[in-house]
Amino acid sequence: MKLLEDRILADGNVLSPAILKVDSFINHQVDPVFMHELGAEIARHFRGQGINKVMTIESSGIAPAVFVAMELQVPLVILKKQSSAILKTDVIQTEVVSFTKEISYQLTLARKYLSENDHVLLVDDFLANGEAATGAIRLIRKAHATIAGIGILIEKSFQPGRTKLNEQGIHVYSLARIAEMDTDHITFLPEEA
Amino acid sequence: MKLLEDRILADGNVLSPAILKVDSFINHQVDPVFMHELGAEIARHFRGQGINKVMTIESSGIAPAVFVAMELQVPLVILKKQSSAILKTDVIQTEVVSFTKEISYQLTLARKYLSENDHVLLVDDFLANGEAATGAIRLIRKAHATIAGIGILIEKSFQPGRTKLNEQGIHVYSLARIAEMDTDHITFLPEEA
Repeated sequence: MKLLEDRILADGNVLSPAILKVDSFINHQVDPVFMHELGAEIARHFRGQGINKVMTIESSGIAPAVFVAMELQVPLVILKKQSSAILKTDVIQTEVVSFTKEISYQLTLARKYLSENDHVLLVDDFLANGEAATGAIRLIRKAHATIAGIGILIEKSFQPGRTKLNEQGIHVYSLARIAEMDTDHITFLPEEA
Repeated sequence: MKLLEDRILADGNVLSPAILKVDSFINHQVDPVFMHELGAEIARHFRGQGINKVMTIESSGIAPAVFVAMELQVPLVILKKQSSAILKTDVIQTEVVSFTKEISYQLTLARKYLSENDHVLLVDDFLANGEAATGAIRLIRKAHATIAGIGILIEKSFQPGRTKLNEQGIHVYSLARIAEMDTDHITFLPEEA
């Protein structure tokens, strides 16, 4: 999506070949009108596929995901990050280890918000190594729901997240795909259909 | 706002005289079309007051706040909850102790996203004891920005949050104000203008 690529070039900040800061318009400060446009584009891509729930992971996935859900007119389910396991039968959990942030957490969902009748679109701001997305997919499968695909704002295509997800048969749609970057240059992969 | 009061009566779940669960449409699962209507009403109330930034606290404030910000066409700044203090001059922090959840955290903001030129509307899902809101206001003052007011979805009016904020001269606008509640009854205070 050229709109997002241009904004990354204008306002993104590459700190190292692996770290892109977009906190002036995506994570820490959010441009809500722009975010609505991004959410509408992800909704457009997945429309007509029987999706009845959008899912995301707190907290930086919430802003894009709530616009995708509004456009598709379906509920948004927000997975919580808990520091420890909860031993209750009405909760589903799975452990996620983030290599980037060197932390682990329990991705947590109240069981009543996901069932075998749900066809789920997962939305997040970044896809890099795919740990969080893979964890969310484990939860979706534990609930016997099905996965329509994953909508991502910015994919670091030089990291293995997409490949790991594709190997599981999961369709990934990313609005911007970064092939490589350094402090004075960002190269994008061609846009997807 | 009758729309929200009716939804609380229909889908809210009072666990005790102090605890109201609204996680089927506000925090854990979000009804995005409904949340957009709530955000638009908060924006309507505060429109024309020179607000140039909306602020919220991760993570359950993000969904309502991003709609308020979209309607006012201004950026949204999301305060982060860090577990420990960061000793960097480009970050502003203040400690918040939550009595409800028995935790404390450092409310954290990159200094560049708030300055003395900013007139800020704070938005959150709940107002109870007001610890988080009071912390956010300390950060706004540390940055020499000014406060237009606070927009809240659900206020527990039997707890002291609003009074503490009003005593600091801060205008609070809540869409639903709960006077008292128990497991089979909820009483609301009259709507504000």
